[in-house]
Amino acid sequence: MNSKGRLYGIGVGPGDPELLTLKALRLLRSASVIAYQSAIDRESIARKIVSPYLPGNQTEILYHLPKALEPEKAKPIYDKEVEPIDKHLAAGRDVVVLCEGDPFFYGSFMYIYTRLSGEYHTEVVPGISSLMACPVSLGVPFTYYNDILTVLPATLPPEKLTAQLLATDAAAIMKLGRHFTKVRDILHQLGLDTRAKYIERATTSEQKIIPIDEVNPQEVPYFSMIVIPTTQKL
Amino acid sequence: MNSKGRLYGIGVGPGDPELLTLKALRLLRSASVIAYQSAIDRESIARKIVSPYLPGNQTEILYHLPKALEPEKAKPIYDKEVEPIDKHLAAGRDVVVLCEGDPFFYGSFMYIYTRLSGEYHTEVVPGISSLMACPVSLGVPFTYYNDILTVLPATLPPEKLTAQLLATDAAAIMKLGRHFTKVRDILHQLGLDTRAKYIERATTSEQKIIPIDEVNPQEVPYFSMIVIPTTQKL
Repeated sequence: MNSKGRLYGIGVGPGDPELLTLKALRLLRSASVIAYQSAIDRESIARKIVSPYLPGNQTEILYHLPKALEPEKAKPIYDKEVEPIDKHLAAGRDVVVLCEGDPFFYGSFMYIYTRLSGEYHTEVVPGISSLMACPVSLGVPFTYYNDILTVLPATLPPEKLTAQLLATDAAAIMKLGRHFTKVRDILHQLGLDTRAKYIERATTSEQKIIPIDEVNPQEVPYFSMIVIPTTQKL
Repeated sequence: MNSKGRLYGIGVGPGDPELLTLKALRLLRSASVIAYQSAIDRESIARKIVSPYLPGNQTEILYHLPKALEPEKAKPIYDKEVEPIDKHLAAGRDVVVLCEGDPFFYGSFMYIYTRLSGEYHTEVVPGISSLMACPVSLGVPFTYYNDILTVLPATLPPEKLTAQLLATDAAAIMKLGRHFTKVRDILHQLGLDTRAKYIERATTSEQKIIPIDEVNPQEVPYFSMIVIPTTQKL
């Protein structure tokens, strides 16, 4: 009998290897195959996070995904990318897919999940998201009591960003990259430029916290966030 | 020389003890004092989560907090509750405060942080929030690509809840308790009643997933959430 392998999607957290959960660590070490993505010509961040824990005898699958691709255009690429994972599972080997942050929170693992979880026993392990890690690294209590929290991709049009920021109590703005200047201008218009805090590569050795007006818009990495914390006085 | 103790606020995650991070586990075991809250006459949930890992020789501080108290009224109670923690720190003993979920995400640890972090070396460890755990336990990919995510306390007035739900792509509704019926009615009005998923006590042995219309409004615990996932087709 050739029983099927099991699929695991594990959140590996924001960057600090110590922010892996005990469950993610156990599953990571249990599987014969690990899979992870990276940008072409770049080291995989997810693999780097777990590298201190790898037993060294696992088959590794690296896949490349174009960044910030519209979901409709990404579909055929994902259909293709899941094939090696599918083959290992069909051959009875367990596969752990490494996911930066949390697997179901703006994560590319969801593409693998929707394609393979119907076919194979699948388990997903939540991870420490940048949404929780960034306020902690900044030292700002984030949301409290009856606060509304809104998570906004910086890719949204300025009028939508403005309307959302006006209607919420606390916010996180993600995917800043080349949208930083637009966001900074909106924060100034709304008088939020000192309350808003900028952080990049939170919890890693390269973490930087920079006042909004001192950030170089040309050098804003993908792994950056603006946090607008609660105004409630605790 | 009597050097001061260090204060640690550690997120212990949503319920499953295996969702503790490696960092939280290390700090938990390193301190001579642990502190945690519970409702009066109830076991502390945070302590229960970490109980498999306790070395057994730590001083324990239990404090009680009235639930859902307005921040303004809570202040004098917190002033009082931090005193035992303050004393241990002043005497040079490290104190680990256990926080369900994540410490800075609607957590009562923030009251301790604002009172004591100026006085003592303080470190906060992010935890797996119910915001990440609930979608994973429900098996629903939560947010993707350019989605806006809104986190809403069910305590808000109905017109505010409605307006927020109309303006977002994905949502989580927390603090349901006695507000469940109001929220359920709004979900029906907006045609969200099948897309919305209800879960209580996620990741624990008592976890329940119930269709919205089959939930008994009299039996909705504090640790429950309604998740409205992305509509993007992955």
